[in-house]
Amino acid sequence: MFPKLTILNCGSAKPTDTQSPSSQIFHLRAKDYLIDCGEGTQLTMAQMGILPPSRLNNIFISHLHADHCLGLIGLLSTLGMLHRTADINIFAPAPAKKILQPQLDFFCDDITYKININEINPRKNEIILEDNTIRISTIPLKHKVPCCGYLFEEQQKLRHYCKDIGDRFNIPIAYINKIKQGEDYITEQGDTIPNSLLTTDPEPPFRYAYCSDTAYYEKIIPIIEGVDCLYHEATFLTERQQRAKETGHSTATQAATIAKMAKVKQLIIGHFSSRYQQFEDFLKEAQEIFPNTRLATKQTIINF
Amino acid sequence: MFPKLTILNCGSAKPTDTQSPSSQIFHLRAKDYLIDCGEGTQLTMAQMGILPPSRLNNIFISHLHADHCLGLIGLLSTLGMLHRTADINIFAPAPAKKILQPQLDFFCDDITYKININEINPRKNEIILEDNTIRISTIPLKHKVPCCGYLFEEQQKLRHYCKDIGDRFNIPIAYINKIKQGEDYITEQGDTIPNSLLTTDPEPPFRYAYCSDTAYYEKIIPIIEGVDCLYHEATFLTERQQRAKETGHSTATQAATIAKMAKVKQLIIGHFSSRYQQFEDFLKEAQEIFPNTRLATKQTIINF
Repeated sequence: MFPKLTILNCGSAKPTDTQSPSSQIFHLRAKDYLIDCGEGTQLTMAQMGILPPSRLNNIFISHLHADHCLGLIGLLSTLGMLHRTADINIFAPAPAKKILQPQLDFFCDDITYKININEINPRKNEIILEDNTIRISTIPLKHKVPCCGYLFEEQQKLRHYCKDIGDRFNIPIAYINKIKQGEDYITEQGDTIPNSLLTTDPEPPFRYAYCSDTAYYEKIIPIIEGVDCLYHEATFLTERQQRAKETGHSTATQAATIAKMAKVKQLIIGHFSSRYQQFEDFLKEAQEIFPNTRLATKQTIINF
Repeated sequence: MFPKLTILNCGSAKPTDTQSPSSQIFHLRAKDYLIDCGEGTQLTMAQMGILPPSRLNNIFISHLHADHCLGLIGLLSTLGMLHRTADINIFAPAPAKKILQPQLDFFCDDITYKININEINPRKNEIILEDNTIRISTIPLKHKVPCCGYLFEEQQKLRHYCKDIGDRFNIPIAYINKIKQGEDYITEQGDTIPNSLLTTDPEPPFRYAYCSDTAYYEKIIPIIEGVDCLYHEATFLTERQQRAKETGHSTATQAATIAKMAKVKQLIIGHFSSRYQQFEDFLKEAQEIFPNTRLATKQTIINF
């Protein structure tokens, strides 16, 4: 099962006839990670046939602007109506607890599961969640309010065990997991069969970085360096570079410049301002600097 | 300009691939009255090309369940971004202030207009807003939380002045408005020209009643009697009458029974449960009792 990204919506603050506020799901190894939750997130999930997202346990909010979090209460309320029982963890900058808890207490007072609000420090790059499949850390961004991106890093996978070679040495099943973890095999006669003979390299771990909302901010480069995919906001075209600076946003050129400097493998740009009706110029502008760029489009599944 | 109703969305609590939570706009004499504001209200307005609704000054919330009010903050925030200056009045049962004000303070702290939250008493039938075009009053409903419908009654219009007859008596322009208001005309010679000769009856004032969410509740009948249009929730078919009772909702049959007993002219049913995929059975069930029934459908403009 390869990683994939479901872009639910990728608009900016003011909705248009074609764009709704931001939300997306990063899928890795049978788990769903919801990133931002603008108004309409659950509606889009329902339209796409993925409400409830059954493998969703963690939600990551970049910042507490309306267009990045107003869909939370509705989604959490609906998950309650659907008799969810597993906890949901929400990661967001302060004052998430102060803002969300009274709404949860009022609108979700009868839900059957627990919601944990974890206030993260958006000014530090630190690990906020780690298990045997993924490590998730914050990416400090530069916006008008405390805001951070999120870096999703798949944990190193087990090595591929070459069964036909193992069988020649009569390796017992009980040893195979150790060999997948990199150990050599010692035969009953005391001979060492090197791991490199018994296994091949696994696929490299996948790394995804979400960076929205942010002004042009080179300090993120060391954190996101070499990621397989970078989602970077591009609210404006260069013609409105000054407006981007004033509002704490980026242009398509700036997003592409970050992608190039960070040597990422693929760039997705989104969070387009409502003043634009079509987005081909965003793609053109970005691709002049970073060719492997694609536009975010709503209700789109990207398979990596 | 005739009254009309824009049904933005007419689903119930859990969204589906075709249904979103409730909101609608009643339009009368160049003014817009937003009734309920479920999640996605502003998104649907944008899709329909009516964001911002420029003639909107008053919003009426039936009750504080998530599917009837979670779209408020997003809409109010966006109206701020669009540089609105005129006040918005919100009418809703308590604890609307306690729930909404902290969100307004946080998400709408920089808006350029004033929001007045008016907590109404959902247990009384009383006038909450009146001007020279409309009188709006509450309709106590029976639901699991304090909840009321709203009755929109157009004020009596001025009588139609018959210019050709008036000209025969050389009636000065300054008198015409008084004659439209029903006065007779006294000529310079002291003769009385009866109003009935100078005017004809205006169209009867339009009356619209919105009743959602509610269990079957005959006490509303005297309030809504004879309205031109009744919107009544019909969350379930009769097959789930027990479930309707338990959850404080109505069946299509019950909605139609209320319409028949109240001798309304037209019935619109909506707020269908997410368990139904098609709604023809709702129409069939209601029309057996009240033939002039129609189904609510999203993004629909009904001209009266």
